[in-house]
Amino acid sequence: MTAIVDHGAWLARFQSALAQPEATDWRSLFAEECYWRDLVAFTWNIVTLEGPDAVADMARRQGPLVSATAFRLDPAMPGGDEGWFDFETTAARCKGHVELKDGLCVTLLTAMVELKGFEEPAGRNRIDGLVHKAVRKRRTWLDDREDQARTLGHERQPYCLIVGGGQNGLALAARMKRLGVPTLVIDAHERPGDAWRKRYKTLYLHDPIWLDHFPYLPFPDHWPLYTSKDKMGDWLEAYAKVMELDVWSSTVCKQARFDEARGEWEVEVERDGRTLTLRPAQLVLATGLSGGKYVPDVPGAETFKDRSYHSGDHPGGEDMTGRRCVVIGSNNSAHDICVDLWENDAASVTMIQRSPTIVVRAETMRNLSGDIPYARKEIPTEAADLLDAVTPFRLKTGIQIAGTSYIRGLDAEFYDKLGRSGFQLSYGEDESGFFMAYWRRAAGYYIDVGGSDLIIEGEIAVRSGEIEAIEPDGVRMADGELLPADLIVYATGYRPMSEWAAKLISPEVEARVGPCWGLGSGTRGDPGPWEGELRNMWKPTRQPNLWFQGGNLAQSRFHSLHLALQIKARMEGLPTPVYWPDEARASVPA
Amino acid sequence: MTAIVDHGAWLARFQSALAQPEATDWRSLFAEECYWRDLVAFTWNIVTLEGPDAVADMARRQGPLVSATAFRLDPAMPGGDEGWFDFETTAARCKGHVELKDGLCVTLLTAMVELKGFEEPAGRNRIDGLVHKAVRKRRTWLDDREDQARTLGHERQPYCLIVGGGQNGLALAARMKRLGVPTLVIDAHERPGDAWRKRYKTLYLHDPIWLDHFPYLPFPDHWPLYTSKDKMGDWLEAYAKVMELDVWSSTVCKQARFDEARGEWEVEVERDGRTLTLRPAQLVLATGLSGGKYVPDVPGAETFKDRSYHSGDHPGGEDMTGRRCVVIGSNNSAHDICVDLWENDAASVTMIQRSPTIVVRAETMRNLSGDIPYARKEIPTEAADLLDAVTPFRLKTGIQIAGTSYIRGLDAEFYDKLGRSGFQLSYGEDESGFFMAYWRRAAGYYIDVGGSDLIIEGEIAVRSGEIEAIEPDGVRMADGELLPADLIVYATGYRPMSEWAAKLISPEVEARVGPCWGLGSGTRGDPGPWEGELRNMWKPTRQPNLWFQGGNLAQSRFHSLHLALQIKARMEGLPTPVYWPDEARASVPA
Repeated sequence: MTAIVDHGAWLARFQSALAQPEATDWRSLFAEECYWRDLVAFTWNIVTLEGPDAVADMARRQGPLVSATAFRLDPAMPGGDEGWFDFETTAARCKGHVELKDGLCVTLLTAMVELKGFEEPAGRNRIDGLVHKAVRKRRTWLDDREDQARTLGHERQPYCLIVGGGQNGLALAARMKRLGVPTLVIDAHERPGDAWRKRYKTLYLHDPIWLDHFPYLPFPDHWPLYTSKDKMGDWLEAYAKVMELDVWSSTVCKQARFDEARGEWEVEVERDGRTLTLRPAQLVLATGLSGGKYVPDVPGAETFKDRSYHSGDHPGGEDMTGRRCVVIGSNNSAHDICVDLWENDAASVTMIQRSPTIVVRAETMRNLSGDIPYARKEIPTEAADLLDAVTPFRLKTGIQIAGTSYIRGLDAEFYDKLGRSGFQLSYGEDESGFFMAYWRRAAGYYIDVGGSDLIIEGEIAVRSGEIEAIEPDGVRMADGELLPADLIVYATGYRPMSEWAAKLISPEVEARVGPCWGLGSGTRGDPGPWEGELRNMWKPTRQPNLWFQGGNLAQSRFHSLHLALQIKARMEGLPTPVYWPDEARASVPA
Repeated sequence: MTAIVDHGAWLARFQSALAQPEATDWRSLFAEECYWRDLVAFTWNIVTLEGPDAVADMARRQGPLVSATAFRLDPAMPGGDEGWFDFETTAARCKGHVELKDGLCVTLLTAMVELKGFEEPAGRNRIDGLVHKAVRKRRTWLDDREDQARTLGHERQPYCLIVGGGQNGLALAARMKRLGVPTLVIDAHERPGDAWRKRYKTLYLHDPIWLDHFPYLPFPDHWPLYTSKDKMGDWLEAYAKVMELDVWSSTVCKQARFDEARGEWEVEVERDGRTLTLRPAQLVLATGLSGGKYVPDVPGAETFKDRSYHSGDHPGGEDMTGRRCVVIGSNNSAHDICVDLWENDAASVTMIQRSPTIVVRAETMRNLSGDIPYARKEIPTEAADLLDAVTPFRLKTGIQIAGTSYIRGLDAEFYDKLGRSGFQLSYGEDESGFFMAYWRRAAGYYIDVGGSDLIIEGEIAVRSGEIEAIEPDGVRMADGELLPADLIVYATGYRPMSEWAAKLISPEVEARVGPCWGLGSGTRGDPGPWEGELRNMWKPTRQPNLWFQGGNLAQSRFHSLHLALQIKARMEGLPTPVYWPDEARASVPA
């Protein structure tokens, strides 16, 4: 039973209000609890406004600057009768979604789709690639491609430099290429895909394939549901080639400095042992969600007589047959490495759990994901991305609390057994579970692909508590017990992502930019204030011309579009008036 | 104004007739002029039956063997109200199309789509790729892939060996892979795509991109309309990798012999200088539409004092600046090379035309192709392939005569100018133009991408007539004139495709198989009798377990499915009763 909701009438009133935002009573359009999520369209930022005052402030400041018009319902979207619409600003064609309750907006999504006058040539508008006419000294595709590769970074500077050639760097570079933004990707590894290939051998994607498509070139329909790291590596390499991306492999970013006067970066890179200076206008860090490897300072660590390393250096457990292994940590890497060691017949595998961990079974996630829009062949991935973007993070928290409770019910027996094994379970501080933990700090969980059963069966021993010291023969726990070990793996996580800014640029820039990732939920590892969006991701930072591109494959695909549009607009000199919600908050009288 | 046509009623009567073919008056179902085109579904062959007697003969012989049932209209096909239907045989799910006139069938298409019980795992039925469970001595994707690559051709024999790793070999190999047929591709070049990369540098695909998609992995939507040879080379290499094809590069097939007793081939190959024997059950030649380079025996050729070579060895015209060039031949290669030499500022370029040539402007083809089903985004390529397959070759001839006349009208001024330049134009013996020439002998035409304008403008000189001899300084024509030359290019074509069978197997096998390609139209280069399908292509030959895979990219994509289904059925030991139309013809009393 659905009430008849007139989205068209609301849109018409919304459009009028935008034309005279000062004269509008925004409470006549938005409910007292309301959310406006904007992806670049109005704010040239990624922002969720909460409540009618925040909405009014943004509309009043940005409305006159972006001139949104031509609102019209889009019945062609999946769920098109549920408030999907198109509109335009001075700069762009955009898409939106509105949810109404008693005639008032409770959620609004506005998202930029393409810049007017800078549409990507495709389909009927694709380039010919060839003139059907004889031309003296013809240049072929190969001539141009080789020229481009030879001169970029030397005779011609890239407008945009992307540090990191993993899935995030390449997806963004592909968008840039289609938008005609001269872009260079640098990557420390020998060839594209190596960041995946070099991880431990049993690594697979945790997300089903329908979440993982890249822009422009979706995976074929027979691709396995879960992709091995090496297959992903091959895909990335083929993708870079087929999309004609300019990637410098074996190239390390040593130091970057923003030249305010010239409005460009001075980036020192080392390529095949040679030092070069690049001068891009825009610098994108696509170096992953974490900074350097984090190993806690444990007394006596240097006295351990056998092998020890960080989880990121785990080569695979083949050499550990018959050996006693201790893994410090209880998140994904810790579990995967414990399983790998067990599979390779280690004599014993002990996991040291230092704090409770969120566990969710991959099989359960897979079953629940079978009907999401991404999994439905009739819904294009671009539409599924928008469908997924409708819900603001504040509401996602509530949904995830309910979802976590539902999953606890589904897998009650599993959680019961795992709890009784001595493993300390968490469901998140506010019981919002795995997904919120991912968005809040990208850590603190295990997606169970078999490790929990081994713990339940006692094949992996779990030991909780504090570590007193490392001794030559093993790990001494605070309660006095010695865990004898031939191998110690520190699955103790990584330093924060923002560290890259300090390392590659300066501690001052890291401080100016502030934390990356996280929502500001005020829970462990995600200090407030509440942001309501992922901090500094795919949007302007407080360091001019510095950007962060990251996330899982789905985020990389979707938000690389938003980042690419922002950079393209700047290259073309379009006005890009950024709305900073923290300034709006600061300007509200106390 | 369309009469209401009841395809459903006809289908019901057709299904009943198939159940008792001897008792059926086939003239009550088929018109006196009628065509039944079968792609493997009924005949395990690729056959067009012409006339009710031929239809009846096939239906009587094959009907009981294939047991076609479950005929039902398919309104989901584009043009679904125009007679598209699904049906099943004992072995397979199939698709068909019927065109009725006054209640009688005038054209019928039946095409196998997939084998029952051997459906390709894809979409919801794709493999998981990963077990969410700990397993001792786990094998990863990479372990399996490397094992496969290491053992195939050594410890394990491929069921199918494909000679030639160009677009045809790779497209078929991809189908085989998806069907689980152990298949090895061998190719003489160093890496996949080199067969394209090594051609002359100005080579581009003549077909617009929407005709050129590969199975499973379509080109992205921004791909240029016309693809350069080098970009195609990169695509093939990426395709082989991403589709996980087993390709041995730098491998030459020396000799193949069919061991009748064991029902397998003994194939001697040289890989990186080492000789190996492979024992596949099935041997596919995917070595292109032509045999070796053909250079006519011209008196004095050995006395020429400067460079001369076959068009296939043309390295590009960069070194020919300021030199006098003579190109013998007037088809595609001859024109492309003449243009290339002109573009590189050759002192003079002369084309020697030995017989009239069909010319069609690429721009005209492109304009006319803009509305074909392939160009329409809403029609999947698989459906467009079927739409294209509806018309039998006999009717295509008539359509092409009309089309050629239409194009002559469109481009009257162009043809007029070209004719007055001294170039001898042909429109085909029966004025059926370019496409029929392609199907009949894959030669005799030029797709004009600029060469004709150069001829019209006198930039390329055309000289018709017989060559008397080659002399040290040039080409002596039969009328006594000497064409002075610093370069002679023999753009004189290739020997027939069937030559590969003689060269790799034996002259006896070539003779048994007979000509490949061509329809048996009785026109020049395509001797009769009329076959109505391309001879020996993608279907059983008279040499057991020998197959030919070839054609342009569209044919490669579409018919690789039919060939793959035939080979898969044999591997699985399914009955594959082949209907040989020549035997049927022979058995008709004179």
